[in-house]
Amino acid sequence: GEMAKLTQLIDNEVFQAYATYATIVLVKMMLMSPMTAYFRVTRKAFANPEDTASFGKGESAKKYLRTDPDVERVRRGHLNDLENIVPFLGIGLLYALSGPDLYTALLHFRIFAGARITHSFAYLIPLPQPSRGLSWAVGYAVTMSMAYKVLKTALYL
Amino acid sequence: GEMAKLTQLIDNEVFQAYATYATIVLVKMMLMSPMTAYFRVTRKAFANPEDTASFGKGESAKKYLRTDPDVERVRRGHLNDLENIVPFLGIGLLYALSGPDLYTALLHFRIFAGARITHSFAYLIPLPQPSRGLSWAVGYAVTMSMAYKVLKTALYL
Amino acid sequence: GEMAKLTQLIDNEVFQAYATYATIVLVKMMLMSPMTAYFRVTRKAFANPEDTASFGKGESAKKYLRTDPDVERVRRGHLNDLENIVPFLGIGLLYALSGPDLYTALLHFRIFAGARITHSFAYLIPLPQPSRGLSWAVGYAVTMSMAYKVLKTALYL
Repeated sequence: GEMAKLTQLIDNEVFQAYATYATIVLVKMMLMSPMTAYFRVTRKAFANPEDTASFGKGESAKKYLRTDPDVERVRRGHLNDLENIVPFLGIGLLYALSGPDLYTALLHFRIFAGARITHSFAYLIPLPQPSRGLSWAVGYAVTMSMAYKVLKTALYL
Repeated sequence: GEMAKLTQLIDNEVFQAYATYATIVLVKMMLMSPMTAYFRVTRKAFANPEDTASFGKGESAKKYLRTDPDVERVRRGHLNDLENIVPFLGIGLLYALSGPDLYTALLHFRIFAGARITHSFAYLIPLPQPSRGLSWAVGYAVTMSMAYKVLKTALYL
Repeated sequence: GEMAKLTQLIDNEVFQAYATYATIVLVKMMLMSPMTAYFRVTRKAFANPEDTASFGKGESAKKYLRTDPDVERVRRGHLNDLENIVPFLGIGLLYALSGPDLYTALLHFRIFAGARITHSFAYLIPLPQPSRGLSWAVGYAVTMSMAYKVLKTALYL
């Protein structure tokens, strides 16, 4: 039946590997949200007046409507994740469907996930450059390599 | 033929449900763009010099290059959508392919869509907290639940 | 076998066209990252203290922690790409699976890619309005048209 056919898709090893690593990097990206909330609460730096209502009314609460370097750092890391994980998500799916051999596909997915996890640590600790720059570049290169394979396999302009 | 196989994918009820709710939340997210434009025009608060050219040259136009609380609020809501709908899009697709039963899948998709629509209203009206925080948390938990199912079904490291 | 089935998906012409244009717009979006880096380096405008360490210690480096109009312009263009290419990615995939005829699908994909490439040039040069506004609106309308087709084909609430 139909469900059997769908199950065959997720039973393919390359597709399973894609599903695993795509989920891992997306969950990693999702962790940036509670981390932003943590720094907003501990640094008392909020963006919305309704978020500071528990600190009282008027000027006493208004002073917490401010930016904080630690909050802004996590937010930049989160945005950088979006900018890089969205291309991986789309190009990686098409790459997984383009018939790569399992070993090569796993190599791409593992290096990308490792690079993005390293990038987050490099951004949040922060580690001295070029840690963050290099981990960004590795993930970028892996995605470009998959894009090349997709276009080589499926180019239809 | 090939097209028949593709049609079978979209004829699967779980996949149809995913297609429906993914499209709904993406269209909802897209509505943030005209809403930003609306507030930029009515509040006269623009980010680009070329956008204020119709207000005249020099200082008279330059004063409209500014930020406005209402514009910034919509933009934060839009970014929050990106941060949460991108994971739903990727993890939800893999979840739909992991063979969940229809009832459970519909429950996940409906709650996520409801939570994100509530989140937008809570952000834009704005409703007092914890409205926005709770609606964010519900959508987040639904996505995490789907991620767990995907990794349980397809884990291939 | 399974791989054969996956290959059949990518051998479908509509899906090949989607794979091609999705990859093109994602690679285009990815180019915004090195462009941001280019303007950060040439304008000496950085966001993180660790990025200015090579300029020396203390006040001499601190003055490069600043925003620059050209850097901010590229960043706005990048965020606009995310806001519009993410919906195309999700809705376009579902549209490609909804059984459109090849000619109509190619028309949608080509116009969207053309509109987003035009949008980037209009933003970065910058071209006078309504160049940027119109190219944005064309891409937006194409995505909405595909969303309508998906919901008409697969609506399952």
